[in-house]
Amino acid sequence: MSGLQKLLQPRSVAVVGASADPAKTSGRPIAYLRKHGFQGRIYPVNPRATEIDGLPCYPEVGALPEAPDVAIVLLSAERTQQAIRELAAIGTGAAIVLASGYSEIGEDGVRRQRELRAAAGSMRILGPNTIGLVNLTDRITLSASGALEVDQFVSGAIGLVSQSGGILGALLSRAAARGVGFSKLISTSNEVDLDLADFIDALADDPATRVIALYVESIRNPSTFRAAARKAARLGKPIVAFKIGRSESGAQAAVSHTGALAGSDGMYDALFEETGIIRAQTFSDLLDIPVALANERELGGRRMAILTSTGGAGTLVADCLGVAGFELPAPDTRTGEALRALQTGDHAALDRNPIDVTLAGLQPDLLRSAIRIVLESDQYDAMVVIVGSSAVAQPELMAGALKDSLALSGKPLMAYISPHAPQAAEVLSRYGIPAFYSPESVSAALSAMWQVHTRQSLPEPDPVTSAAQAPLICAEHGSLDEVQAKTLFARFGVPGVREIVVHSEEQAAEAAKRFGSRVVLKLLSSEITHKSDVGGVAVNVAPQDVIPRLRQMAADVQRHTGHSPTAFLVQEMVTGAAEVIVGVHKDPLGTAILLGMGGVVAELVRDTTLLLLPEAGVALTAGQVRAALQRLKTWPLLNGYRGREPADVPALIEAVLAFAHMAQALQAQLIEAEINPLFVKPLGQGVCAADGIAVLKQAAD
Amino acid sequence: MSGLQKLLQPRSVAVVGASADPAKTSGRPIAYLRKHGFQGRIYPVNPRATEIDGLPCYPEVGALPEAPDVAIVLLSAERTQQAIRELAAIGTGAAIVLASGYSEIGEDGVRRQRELRAAAGSMRILGPNTIGLVNLTDRITLSASGALEVDQFVSGAIGLVSQSGGILGALLSRAAARGVGFSKLISTSNEVDLDLADFIDALADDPATRVIALYVESIRNPSTFRAAARKAARLGKPIVAFKIGRSESGAQAAVSHTGALAGSDGMYDALFEETGIIRAQTFSDLLDIPVALANERELGGRRMAILTSTGGAGTLVADCLGVAGFELPAPDTRTGEALRALQTGDHAALDRNPIDVTLAGLQPDLLRSAIRIVLESDQYDAMVVIVGSSAVAQPELMAGALKDSLALSGKPLMAYISPHAPQAAEVLSRYGIPAFYSPESVSAALSAMWQVHTRQSLPEPDPVTSAAQAPLICAEHGSLDEVQAKTLFARFGVPGVREIVVHSEEQAAEAAKRFGSRVVLKLLSSEITHKSDVGGVAVNVAPQDVIPRLRQMAADVQRHTGHSPTAFLVQEMVTGAAEVIVGVHKDPLGTAILLGMGGVVAELVRDTTLLLLPEAGVALTAGQVRAALQRLKTWPLLNGYRGREPADVPALIEAVLAFAHMAQALQAQLIEAEINPLFVKPLGQGVCAADGIAVLKQAAD
Repeated sequence: MSGLQKLLQPRSVAVVGASADPAKTSGRPIAYLRKHGFQGRIYPVNPRATEIDGLPCYPEVGALPEAPDVAIVLLSAERTQQAIRELAAIGTGAAIVLASGYSEIGEDGVRRQRELRAAAGSMRILGPNTIGLVNLTDRITLSASGALEVDQFVSGAIGLVSQSGGILGALLSRAAARGVGFSKLISTSNEVDLDLADFIDALADDPATRVIALYVESIRNPSTFRAAARKAARLGKPIVAFKIGRSESGAQAAVSHTGALAGSDGMYDALFEETGIIRAQTFSDLLDIPVALANERELGGRRMAILTSTGGAGTLVADCLGVAGFELPAPDTRTGEALRALQTGDHAALDRNPIDVTLAGLQPDLLRSAIRIVLESDQYDAMVVIVGSSAVAQPELMAGALKDSLALSGKPLMAYISPHAPQAAEVLSRYGIPAFYSPESVSAALSAMWQVHTRQSLPEPDPVTSAAQAPLICAEHGSLDEVQAKTLFARFGVPGVREIVVHSEEQAAEAAKRFGSRVVLKLLSSEITHKSDVGGVAVNVAPQDVIPRLRQMAADVQRHTGHSPTAFLVQEMVTGAAEVIVGVHKDPLGTAILLGMGGVVAELVRDTTLLLLPEAGVALTAGQVRAALQRLKTWPLLNGYRGREPADVPALIEAVLAFAHMAQALQAQLIEAEINPLFVKPLGQGVCAADGIAVLKQAAD
Repeated sequence: MSGLQKLLQPRSVAVVGASADPAKTSGRPIAYLRKHGFQGRIYPVNPRATEIDGLPCYPEVGALPEAPDVAIVLLSAERTQQAIRELAAIGTGAAIVLASGYSEIGEDGVRRQRELRAAAGSMRILGPNTIGLVNLTDRITLSASGALEVDQFVSGAIGLVSQSGGILGALLSRAAARGVGFSKLISTSNEVDLDLADFIDALADDPATRVIALYVESIRNPSTFRAAARKAARLGKPIVAFKIGRSESGAQAAVSHTGALAGSDGMYDALFEETGIIRAQTFSDLLDIPVALANERELGGRRMAILTSTGGAGTLVADCLGVAGFELPAPDTRTGEALRALQTGDHAALDRNPIDVTLAGLQPDLLRSAIRIVLESDQYDAMVVIVGSSAVAQPELMAGALKDSLALSGKPLMAYISPHAPQAAEVLSRYGIPAFYSPESVSAALSAMWQVHTRQSLPEPDPVTSAAQAPLICAEHGSLDEVQAKTLFARFGVPGVREIVVHSEEQAAEAAKRFGSRVVLKLLSSEITHKSDVGGVAVNVAPQDVIPRLRQMAADVQRHTGHSPTAFLVQEMVTGAAEVIVGVHKDPLGTAILLGMGGVVAELVRDTTLLLLPEAGVALTAGQVRAALQRLKTWPLLNGYRGREPADVPALIEAVLAFAHMAQALQAQLIEAEINPLFVKPLGQGVCAADGIAVLKQAAD
């Protein structure tokens, strides 16, 4: 067994620094292990006790009768170091370090954490600053968290990995109140060794885990994270992640919480997108979406039936589902007739959607029949049942009817609880029916199920030939001028506009003759990157106006910069093309290609997307680029919006792939690169880069 | 006392159709009235009983010893009509009609509801299809809702008016579980008589109500609603509204729920904006925001301190506050020093934000001192305290410290509860400290408080002179052509581009000479509204190209429409101007002016806003138009974005006011009107309408 396997399913646990007083934090782990029924061997270690709770107590790690699978270390940060060294020496599988005072407190702590790592050698470490790990499947509690005071757990199919121990405790407490169970709970915190990726990998293999929930502050090792997430996807286990640091303040708070530097939030979107991870948009989604996915019923379509015992709440849920883009068709003739036959009288509203069974509270048979009719109808892909106020006094009424209906169909079935009815929620969860208190949770859960259903299998990595993949070294360095930048891009296959470098008015006038009735004039300089700000760009210039216009440009630039420009560009004037921005985004999380529509309106509405580059040796695929483009709100502009001519999207995709290849090949040498705009001409006519920026480090010898 | 006043504070209540069996719905109202301590007179009416719960029972309404202030009618829809007639005849103040089977079931119900109204005469009616009204301030329950089974209520400062009875019950139940109290609860449902506006008006006057919460399916009478909302604003009582029907499906469901036709959702935004109503974005906000506002502490700035006993949750709340645009500054030197002095040791994180008092759970004095330091610091405008897992076992620990701190400062103080700790929530609410379970609720509550703080007093209505206000009659009707439409707009003060109507190629060539180096050519037709779709628009045409271009246009139009065009427009070509769309939006909720940036990208991202027109006799103000323009994401384009020349916003505002005046003056005669685009030239150069559409009804004689 590996150290990680031992950590998840230990047969023996040493508790270093255990106290005989269960009221103390250091007294809790042994008390919890025994209370919740750990079947293995427990070794208390404490020089000041001979026995704890009837178990022989060992004075030091060296005195233990065997190398334990796991050691829980309850000592202060100062004393932990020595214990870790001793535990590693005797061959302990893994140690859980609860002490704080490491990377989260600054430089001193960072150093201490480095020493901890060194002291552990090949022994695995969870933490430091963790509240530990709970294997609910096997009832093994390796934690001192007060959340384990409960008499018993609900074990379930959700594996939770949290970078915050406090959040893990909060989620356990909230889930328990709703009767929602977990398989494994792991707090990784400072991640000196074992991190999110290790546990995603392990939970992907864990038969008891069907869904993985992540509370993420910062991903420290993007490449192992990606590999683990892809493995979980391959094995059909959805991952749901809530990620903080969406704002400057939040990112700052996260840094000071765990001492890790996070990447930009947009990069996490790109990473989650690439690995098929569902991003929880609200904190409650982090519990609600896994609850729905753990159910393992597949959502095959977007047509929802709502069955309600209280009109208003049915309408409320219908509205939320509508906002999320689900359909709520009225029952078709056959289904409507079957429903109508259940009840007579002009007040009945059974043949609508929401299907109103208000009176059925007193007629359980009617309720069951209505549920059956909906589940058996081809017209609906899932059913949401609204639980009304009768559930406060009679939690079994609706829950029982739903439980009996589960076998009728494999369609998703979930409940929205309108009043405060904790017993009803608990009973429904126990019966395996996802139950929610907020209408937005119902739509978030169904949207996530739809995302799981429609997600194509993740694109297989596209290994590139070793020749194409060889890292390139670029002789230029520093900030390139526009021509150099576009020449670099062209070497990788991104065509540029036709242009001529000129050094005099006469040369410019001569050059302009080659480009039709209109040209673009530009200042050429590697120092001035914002040419338009200094009057260095003129578009739509007629050949006869080239000389006076250039003279004016020279004067404007001179006035703005104090320098007399010596080089200019005469470019062909491209019209009738869409404008796209393609850039490189460097981030602690990796390198990404930024894609967006050009122009000032698109800039104001921030309609851009990031596409993460794969690991070395693997190329982006055309499908990934196309999917990223389709995420843009302005995508229709490329796609024949309102009778426009469709743009040359295949050529655009090819150019983006070439640009991405450049970013991969130049690796760390490339500091910055952007094409703005890239003209995308009508289908069949290709693309061309009209302007470009590139900044390169000097190549190492 | 008016009928409405009697309804809210009755001294006598008749219960028509009362049952002696409290297990039956019809047995509940009397049982609840007595249980919750109603001090007035109760008159059961039922021909089949002589006594109910010790009270003499009357065989019919006519036999009552006095005209009751309120009658609760528990009969079926069929028998209700007669009872209402009898109650009205004896001078009853108001009747509450619980029966369903009215407008919500379709045509038959609509007719029945009309008859109910007629039967009531001057007696006020709440309902039908309502669950009634509860005055918690005075402990008067006028309802049969099972939600009243509770032994006692928490009375509070939130007045809730709901168009759904079920939702009202759900909110009461959820609030009670958190210890949150209401002043009045009113379910208006079908609103045959008393509606949202009546109760907003009454609650604005109610001393026990400090905040008004609305659950809105459809506003049936926008003008009384606006008046009531303005009154509440004048009296300093914020209104928080959750409105469904945001999606097609939701709107449909709402219609079939109460039989009312709703306006478009954007119009509700406009209405809420105009009347200063805070729109709850999620269902839980409808409770959480009023909880915060009922507290009556004013948020004077955006700098938040977070004090936490559990690191992860502090970070989580910090992130949500950051996303909502709040600042979380680290403590300044003085505050930091004071915090640092509270605790020694390198693990303390007291001088940061979030301020981490994890260890303070065992040191209540430290906790109290930290709270005091933050509340007394000038640096923070509000404090959010994170309640950690210790609150499960010791709900008083944090709550007590906060309670004692309330007197130290008038700053907002609220709590986020991290684990499931219902007792802690209840204790905090009891102490007057808003307590939330979701981090998003904390930021929604603070955002609403900020909105209340920054809301300028609503603009005073701007009465227009009677001459300007006189309804105008327009002789033209039907779909106007572009020239007619712009002539109409110009009559009201919106200038158009310079243009000449031509009927031949020669006339066109002659006209083009008057407009500089480039012109626009257009088909002129009242039938073809989408000119560009049929090849009927050409821009940037040089004078020498006018004749061939016009010839081509005539051929294109002929090919597309089968008709040979006879009239064209030659227009000046306007360059260097921003393009804006100004339109009229007609809606069941009223008439609004639609404003948006022109161009295809703005169209794709739906960056438009609606500005509701005031009631007759009142004009929009320039401030309202400017505020609406500033709501556009693309507003910076008009405002000198990135060194652009600022556009002539004063002229734009004047044009919008003129267009709005037109919409008010033409009233119902105007079916449709739009300027697209309106060119907004650089500051000082004015605006001009480049294209326009108008559709008018024939003027009545």
